[in-house]
Amino acid sequence: MVSKLKDIAGMQDDAVNIFYTGLQAVESNAAVKRYCRLEGNHLFIENKSYDLTRFNNLFIVGAGKATAPMASAIEDILGKRIKTGTINVKYEHVTELSRINQIEAGHPVPDNNGQQGAQAILNLAKDARKDDLVLCLVSGGGSALLPLPFTGLTLKDKQDITKILLSCGATIHEINAIRKHTSMIKGGWLAQAAYPAELVSLILSDVIGDDLDIIASGPTVPDSNTFQDCVQIIKKYNIQKKIPKTIANHIEAGILGKVPETPKPGDPAFDKTHNLIIGSNIEAVIAAKRKAESIGYNTLILSSMIEGETRHVAQVHAAIAKEIIKTGNPLPIPACILSGGETTVTIKGKGLGGRNQEFSLAAAIEIAGEKSIVVLSGGTDGTDGPTNAAGAIADTNTIKRAQALGLDPNHFLLNNNSYNFFEKLGDLLITGPTNTNVMDLRIILVG
Amino acid sequence: MVSKLKDIAGMQDDAVNIFYTGLQAVESNAAVKRYCRLEGNHLFIENKSYDLTRFNNLFIVGAGKATAPMASAIEDILGKRIKTGTINVKYEHVTELSRINQIEAGHPVPDNNGQQGAQAILNLAKDARKDDLVLCLVSGGGSALLPLPFTGLTLKDKQDITKILLSCGATIHEINAIRKHTSMIKGGWLAQAAYPAELVSLILSDVIGDDLDIIASGPTVPDSNTFQDCVQIIKKYNIQKKIPKTIANHIEAGILGKVPETPKPGDPAFDKTHNLIIGSNIEAVIAAKRKAESIGYNTLILSSMIEGETRHVAQVHAAIAKEIIKTGNPLPIPACILSGGETTVTIKGKGLGGRNQEFSLAAAIEIAGEKSIVVLSGGTDGTDGPTNAAGAIADTNTIKRAQALGLDPNHFLLNNNSYNFFEKLGDLLITGPTNTNVMDLRIILVG
Repeated sequence: MVSKLKDIAGMQDDAVNIFYTGLQAVESNAAVKRYCRLEGNHLFIENKSYDLTRFNNLFIVGAGKATAPMASAIEDILGKRIKTGTINVKYEHVTELSRINQIEAGHPVPDNNGQQGAQAILNLAKDARKDDLVLCLVSGGGSALLPLPFTGLTLKDKQDITKILLSCGATIHEINAIRKHTSMIKGGWLAQAAYPAELVSLILSDVIGDDLDIIASGPTVPDSNTFQDCVQIIKKYNIQKKIPKTIANHIEAGILGKVPETPKPGDPAFDKTHNLIIGSNIEAVIAAKRKAESIGYNTLILSSMIEGETRHVAQVHAAIAKEIIKTGNPLPIPACILSGGETTVTIKGKGLGGRNQEFSLAAAIEIAGEKSIVVLSGGTDGTDGPTNAAGAIADTNTIKRAQALGLDPNHFLLNNNSYNFFEKLGDLLITGPTNTNVMDLRIILVG
Repeated sequence: MVSKLKDIAGMQDDAVNIFYTGLQAVESNAAVKRYCRLEGNHLFIENKSYDLTRFNNLFIVGAGKATAPMASAIEDILGKRIKTGTINVKYEHVTELSRINQIEAGHPVPDNNGQQGAQAILNLAKDARKDDLVLCLVSGGGSALLPLPFTGLTLKDKQDITKILLSCGATIHEINAIRKHTSMIKGGWLAQAAYPAELVSLILSDVIGDDLDIIASGPTVPDSNTFQDCVQIIKKYNIQKKIPKTIANHIEAGILGKVPETPKPGDPAFDKTHNLIIGSNIEAVIAAKRKAESIGYNTLILSSMIEGETRHVAQVHAAIAKEIIKTGNPLPIPACILSGGETTVTIKGKGLGGRNQEFSLAAAIEIAGEKSIVVLSGGTDGTDGPTNAAGAIADTNTIKRAQALGLDPNHFLLNNNSYNFFEKLGDLLITGPTNTNVMDLRIILVG
């Protein structure tokens, strides 16, 4: 049981333990093994059985930040039955594999390695015949890691538009809509390439609501977006004049029917495709909640689908913590509020940081001087923005400690410089690669 | 009990009933009578007794949107014992009074009537002697309704800086810090004027956390802000070049000690001052929660201290509603999520609306197409922004209905044009004056 007199340091330890428990629940190697097992010649995937004697070849493809450990699990299960395979993973996110080729590629900015790997993956899918089985291993980051610009477009074009969309505050849904319509592998094109082979996609979800056609820009899923949607998104953020001319022309050609629309529901390729989610944010949140309960906290899951501008989302979380202290609503201390999802940062400054570190910084400002509150926000993939941290930990003394060091918290927040703020305080959360990626996990402890 | 099959129309009725129940709990006339009663010659205020035979004169002062019904309650209780009184109220927010003078004044933009009333109130306080009792009736809106620019400043200067601060997204705390330091009546000056008379301030709180020095810019409360804070706020929003030169000079003079700081804790005036909160947002939220429970909803109070940019706060509320539908967290349907506080709108468009209507519009976009969700956001004072509505009601069909009328919800949101959006749909919440003002109340029903 948690004592009501537990100090801030003890609560920080609790927050870290709760976070790691959440991560373990969605570790991707274990997730694959929970859903897949081999019995004799039968591969069971969830409740479906595949008689491997029916198939001539078994191919593995895939991409994502957590795809290497997924591939490792698949090799453990299927061993030499695998003919060959290729996956795209983030630099330094490789593991030891014997039959599946790992291509290290750029993330969050796609690069040439990614493009070469994507082409190899598409070719492998095209080589699959009617009596072949293709297993596709998809996890978050797959969008950036699987770049294959449509004919006439360059990787630079795609990099440029991704940068523009990220910096104007576009949602991941919006960014992916445009990615799919400028790609030859996303938005269902990989499934169409594999047809008429049998295709099973094992998916670790990193998007709000687990929409299949959004995760990794849905390479094996019918696309719900159209070229017309792309036009709307570009209008919404008023970036008509900023985007590369080649992309504008390509979308225009799509509207005019001169470039094919992405595969839509009803395409025969999807009759041979089975998409299965093997891990998602809510599982991490629920596991974290159980851990918090086991060490004595009253718990409340807000939502695993939290979106919105980070600093305002942080204000709402802080308001709940302050209400707990003031009136015991929505639950009494010691309390643990949990939430998941992925917020947005509209970049206005030139600092270094990520949405999780910015969340903790904005929360720190809101809770400064209150009684005991600890805030941990971390990316489950272990990387938050272009930094080596997964997130950061803040508490009701953070601002006081920062000011004692001569740091102006509001200045760091305005400059999107949360990494340098928490680095100076020694309050970064650094996990290294976590072998998973189900968006973010936020833990607010009130003692 | 609510049937799980209750339709959207039934849930809308529930939301409205829950909202009105919240309002009733903080109706200002009733609130005064809960805290004040006369027994013989003794006036009891909460647990303190004032022997009225000890005082030569009893004066009433005050300002705020809900101050007229407070004055009416005081006249009911004290009748002819009142020598005289003056209160500033919003246009058309008057009531029938026999001994207390009501001055109708501008809100949210202060005007000359307000200034004349403020001068009369300050004079009345100055006239009070050692053996007099002054009752001060304070409610939200008091900041705008009690404008008394410091010598050398004009009302126009104060109007200009308020407009600039409102449009750059400054918090009510920040706006009030500057208001106090450019005023001769706010920030404790009224208490200092009344000294050495006995002063009791009855306060209906309209600010986050019920900070006494913030409500109506704290005319009877020591000021925690300094001229130095004003400089920081102006820097934070980078409005150095926008603010009136006279105000910049005044603040500079304050920094240099050429203009007196507002009265600080320790000033003898506050030994003779008793400030008492007689109603606040959490009371409305709790009453609303009880009503929701009584008609069969599972309930959850998020916080009465919600702040932040409205559309992002709405996204968080919508995410919670969607989680309820998807996984039954944080509570099972039929569910009622309640929150209070006051969000901010950074105005970028030229439309008509208020923070509550904008909340409902942003939420409508987020919940479009989901199962049964109803969202009501309303200002407890009955006015939301410069409109005749208190707020608006949205549900999971709102966007579909809007699109059928040819309305583009995102366009209305980008243009801060929520009033015209909901007006066309017939979904405005119109209450008229409510005799209270404890910020906003948001009710999310999930069926």
